[in-house]
Amino acid sequence: MRLNLSLQQIVEQLGGKASGNTETQIVRVGSLALAQAGAVSFFSDTKYTAQLKNTSASAVVIGLQHASLTNLPKIITDNPYAYFAKLSQLLNPTYVVSPGIHASAVIEATAVIPTSCSIAANAVIEANVVLGNNVTIGAGCVIERNSSIADNTILEANVMIKYGTQIGKNCHLFPGCVIANDGFGYAEAANAGNTKHWVKIPQVGRVVIHDFVDIGANTTIDRGAIDDTVIEEGVKLDNLIHIAHNCRIGAHTVIAGCAGIAGSAIIGKHCKIGGAAMILGHLSIADHVTISPGSMIMRSISKAGTYTALMPSQAHEDWLKTAANIRHLSQLTDKIKTLEARIAQLTSTELTSNKK
Amino acid sequence: MRLNLSLQQIVEQLGGKASGNTETQIVRVGSLALAQAGAVSFFSDTKYTAQLKNTSASAVVIGLQHASLTNLPKIITDNPYAYFAKLSQLLNPTYVVSPGIHASAVIEATAVIPTSCSIAANAVIEANVVLGNNVTIGAGCVIERNSSIADNTILEANVMIKYGTQIGKNCHLFPGCVIANDGFGYAEAANAGNTKHWVKIPQVGRVVIHDFVDIGANTTIDRGAIDDTVIEEGVKLDNLIHIAHNCRIGAHTVIAGCAGIAGSAIIGKHCKIGGAAMILGHLSIADHVTISPGSMIMRSISKAGTYTALMPSQAHEDWLKTAANIRHLSQLTDKIKTLEARIAQLTSTELTSNKK
Amino acid sequence: MRLNLSLQQIVEQLGGKASGNTETQIVRVGSLALAQAGAVSFFSDTKYTAQLKNTSASAVVIGLQHASLTNLPKIITDNPYAYFAKLSQLLNPTYVVSPGIHASAVIEATAVIPTSCSIAANAVIEANVVLGNNVTIGAGCVIERNSSIADNTILEANVMIKYGTQIGKNCHLFPGCVIANDGFGYAEAANAGNTKHWVKIPQVGRVVIHDFVDIGANTTIDRGAIDDTVIEEGVKLDNLIHIAHNCRIGAHTVIAGCAGIAGSAIIGKHCKIGGAAMILGHLSIADHVTISPGSMIMRSISKAGTYTALMPSQAHEDWLKTAANIRHLSQLTDKIKTLEARIAQLTSTELTSNKK
Repeated sequence: MRLNLSLQQIVEQLGGKASGNTETQIVRVGSLALAQAGAVSFFSDTKYTAQLKNTSASAVVIGLQHASLTNLPKIITDNPYAYFAKLSQLLNPTYVVSPGIHASAVIEATAVIPTSCSIAANAVIEANVVLGNNVTIGAGCVIERNSSIADNTILEANVMIKYGTQIGKNCHLFPGCVIANDGFGYAEAANAGNTKHWVKIPQVGRVVIHDFVDIGANTTIDRGAIDDTVIEEGVKLDNLIHIAHNCRIGAHTVIAGCAGIAGSAIIGKHCKIGGAAMILGHLSIADHVTISPGSMIMRSISKAGTYTALMPSQAHEDWLKTAANIRHLSQLTDKIKTLEARIAQLTSTELTSNKK
Repeated sequence: MRLNLSLQQIVEQLGGKASGNTETQIVRVGSLALAQAGAVSFFSDTKYTAQLKNTSASAVVIGLQHASLTNLPKIITDNPYAYFAKLSQLLNPTYVVSPGIHASAVIEATAVIPTSCSIAANAVIEANVVLGNNVTIGAGCVIERNSSIADNTILEANVMIKYGTQIGKNCHLFPGCVIANDGFGYAEAANAGNTKHWVKIPQVGRVVIHDFVDIGANTTIDRGAIDDTVIEEGVKLDNLIHIAHNCRIGAHTVIAGCAGIAGSAIIGKHCKIGGAAMILGHLSIADHVTISPGSMIMRSISKAGTYTALMPSQAHEDWLKTAANIRHLSQLTDKIKTLEARIAQLTSTELTSNKK
Repeated sequence: MRLNLSLQQIVEQLGGKASGNTETQIVRVGSLALAQAGAVSFFSDTKYTAQLKNTSASAVVIGLQHASLTNLPKIITDNPYAYFAKLSQLLNPTYVVSPGIHASAVIEATAVIPTSCSIAANAVIEANVVLGNNVTIGAGCVIERNSSIADNTILEANVMIKYGTQIGKNCHLFPGCVIANDGFGYAEAANAGNTKHWVKIPQVGRVVIHDFVDIGANTTIDRGAIDDTVIEEGVKLDNLIHIAHNCRIGAHTVIAGCAGIAGSAIIGKHCKIGGAAMILGHLSIADHVTISPGSMIMRSISKAGTYTALMPSQAHEDWLKTAANIRHLSQLTDKIKTLEARIAQLTSTELTSNKK
C-alpha cells in the first residue's frame, strides 16, 4: 500500500511543528496549484499567496512568518522547500527489490548470477551471460548469450538485450528498450533477372554501454556493423529514441524523447539534444553543443553553441502564403537582383541626365 | 478459424435477396478496388461503375436499380452501405475473451481480481493491484504494485504499467505501450573534480488516465515529477507517441502517430494533433486547436484554429537553392531595405531634378 | 563463449600466411581506427598508413607489398578485404537455434507447428496459427489466432502479431515490433448533451507481409480498416517506424528509422525513404523515389527523383533572424512588388523627363 502518514507522524520523523488538525492524513506531495485531497504542498514565496488560498492540498509546509496566510493544517519549519524534499523522500521511499530468482525465470546453466541479484518473473537469461552484484532484471526481460551487465544496474520490464552486449555499472534501462539490434545495413544487388534487391550486410559489432547510463522506454540502440556502438559514461537517453549502428555518444550527453541519431554519427560530450531532433549519419558534433528540439542537423558541428533548424509555426492561412513564398524564394532573389540592376542603371542614367 | 458464410447464409441472417450463385463463400469484406477472391464488396454510386466492372470481389452488395451492372453473385438490398456495415460486423464478430486466469500468470496474493476478468499467459500482476469488472490483461503484460484499472478496460499483449497508475473504465491499451515510466528529469551537478554530470530528480507523481482513453502500440506516457500526468476522458492516442511528465491532455483530444508532447505541456480539449507533430514543454494549447502533421509548436496557442509549421517539399535541386536562400534571408531583407532607401533617394532627386 | 582463434588457427582454415606471433588470440574484427586488443583489422590502401601505425588492433590482414609497414602480428594474403570478410564470418558464425518448443511456451492445440520450428521460452501461440518450416519464434512473442508465418521466417524476442496476419517466407522481425494493431480510425459523434466524442471505426482488414521483408525493433504496422495493409517483397524497415492502416509499401523499398507513413498512403517499389521522413495520408509515391531524411511529404509524387523538405540548420542567433524573416516573407514579397511598381513608375517618369 501507498504510505499514509499523519502530520504528527511526519514531524516526529522530520522535525518541524504540526499545527491545526495534526491527524490529517498525507499520502503524497503536490504543487499548490494541482494538489488534491491527501496531498501536502509547500509555500515559500508570497507571489504564490493566491495559489495558497485556492489550493486543494490537505496540508501545507510553511515558514512561521507565513503561517497565518492559511487555515489549512500545516507543518511550520524554517526552510519549507528543503523540508518538502525530505518529505517527498519519506512518502516515496526507494523501492527495494528482494534478491532472488523468480521460479518462472528461464536461465541457462552457464549464466553467472550473484546471489545479490534479483531476477523477476518470466525473465530469460541465455548462455554465458554474466551479471555483477545487485543487478535487477525486470519481468519479461530477455538477455541474450554472452552479454554482461555490471553492478547495480537495473533493467525494468521487457527490456531486450541482444547477444554480446556490455553494460556498465549503475545503469538504468527502462521498459521495452531494445539494445544491440542489428544495424540497418543493406547493399543493393541485382539478381539473374536484373531486379534489384537488398542484401543484408552482417552486423558483427557490439553495443558497449559505460557506467551511469539511463536508457528510456522503447528506445532502440543498434549494434555496430564492424566496430561497436558506444554510449559513454553518464549519458541519459529519453523514451522512443533511435541510435543507429556505429554511433558514439559522448559522456554526459542528454538526448530528449523521439530524437534519432543516424548511423556512424559521433556526438561529443556534454551535448544537449532536444526532443525529436535528428542528426544525419557520419556527422561529428563537438562537445557542449546544444541542438534545439525538432531540428534536423545535416552538417558536422565543430564549435560549441546552440544550433536550430525549425520552421516557425503560423496560423494555417498565413502559413499557406509563407509556403508559397518559400517555394518561390529563388524567383524572389532573382527579382531583387533585377531591381538592383535596374536601380544601378537608373542612377547612372540620372547622373548622366543631371550632367547634361 | 475465420468465419465462412455463403450468400444464402448471409441473407438468412441479415435479410436482402441473394442472386447468382448463392453458395458463393464469403470470408471477408473489401473495397471494390482492392477486394480479392473470398471478399464481398458494396456498390452504391455509379461513379464507381468502372471499379465494379473490374473488381476481383467474389460478390457484391448492391441496390436493385444497379443490380444489372454486374454479373457477379450479389445481395440485393435497399441500402447497400448500411447492409455492408452489418455484414462486416457479422464476418468480424467481437472476439470475446473468456474470463479466468491463465495458469502461467504470476499474480501477487494481495492483487484484487474479480472473476469476470481475463488474465492471459505470462502476465505479471504485482502487490495491491486492483482490477475492476471485465478487465482484460493480455499476454506478457506487467502491472506494477498499487495500480488500479477500472471496469471493461483492455490491455493487449506486453503492456507495461508502472507502480501507482490509475486507469479508468473502457480504456484500450495497445501492445507494447509503457505507462508511468520515470519522467526525464535530471539536474546538472559538478563532482569534486568539477566534471559536470546529471543527477536524477525523483519522479514521484503518477499517471492518471480517465475513461474511454485509447493508447496506441509502443506509445509511452511518463509519470509526473511532483504532480500527476493526466490523460482526460475520451482521448485517443495513436502508436509511437511520447507524452512527457506533467502533461495534461484535454478530453476528447486525438493525437496521431509519432507525435511528441514535451514536459508540462497542457493540451486543451477536442484538439487534433497531426502525426509527428511536436509540442514544446510548458506550453498551453487552447481547446479545439488543430496542429498540422509534422509541425513543431514553439509558442502557446490561446485561440482555436489550425496551426502549421512545415517546409514545403521540392525536387532536391530546387530545394538546394531554397535552402541557400533561406540561409541568406537576412541579407535579402537588408538588400530590400537598401533598395527602398535608394529609391526614396532617387525619387527625391528626381523630384528636385524635375523642379529645376 | 565468443569464438577465440589464434592467427595460426585462422590461416589453417582460411589460407594465407601468418607472420609475427602466430599464437596471437583474435576474438573479433574491427576497423584500424577503432579496433582494440583482441581485434583483427585489415589494410589495403596506403592512404590509411597513419591509421595502421596507430591502430590498437592485435593483428592485421595485409598484402605482401604492405607487410613491412607494420610490426604487428599479421596475416599476409593477396586480397586483404575479401579475406577480412571471410574472417568476419568465421568469427561470427550464424547462430543456429535448435528446433523444438521450450517447455514454458504456451501453445494452443489447434496451432500447426512443424518439428523444424524453434519456439523460445514464454512464447504464446494462439488458436489456428500456422507456421511453415524452420520458423523461429523468439522469447516472449505473442502470435494471435488465425495468423500464418511461412518458411524460414525469424521473429526475435517480444514480437507481437495480432490476429489474422499473414507473413511470408524468409522475413526477419526484430524485437518489440507490433504487427496488425488496430488502425487509428475514429468518427466524431455527439452524445445527447451534444458533447462531441470519438467512436471507433472497426478495423477489419489484415496485415499481409510478403517474402524477404525485415521489420525493425519497436516498429508498428497497423491492420487495414476494410482492405489489407500490404508490405511487398523485399521491403526493409528500420526501427521505430510507424506504418498506418491501409498503406501499401512497394517491393524492395527501404525506410530508415523513425519514419512515419500515414494512413492509405501508397509507396512505390524501390523507393528510399530517409530517417524521420513522413508521408501524409492518401498520397501516392511513384517507384524509385528517394525522400530525404526528416522531410514531410504533403503531395503525391508521380516522378522518380529525390525530394526534400528541410529547414537548413543555423547557429541559434542566426536562426532567430531567419525565423522572423520567414514569418514576414509575405510582407517581403509585397515590398518587392512595391519596389517594382515604383521603379516602373520612375523609369517612365525618367523617360518622360528625358523626352522633355
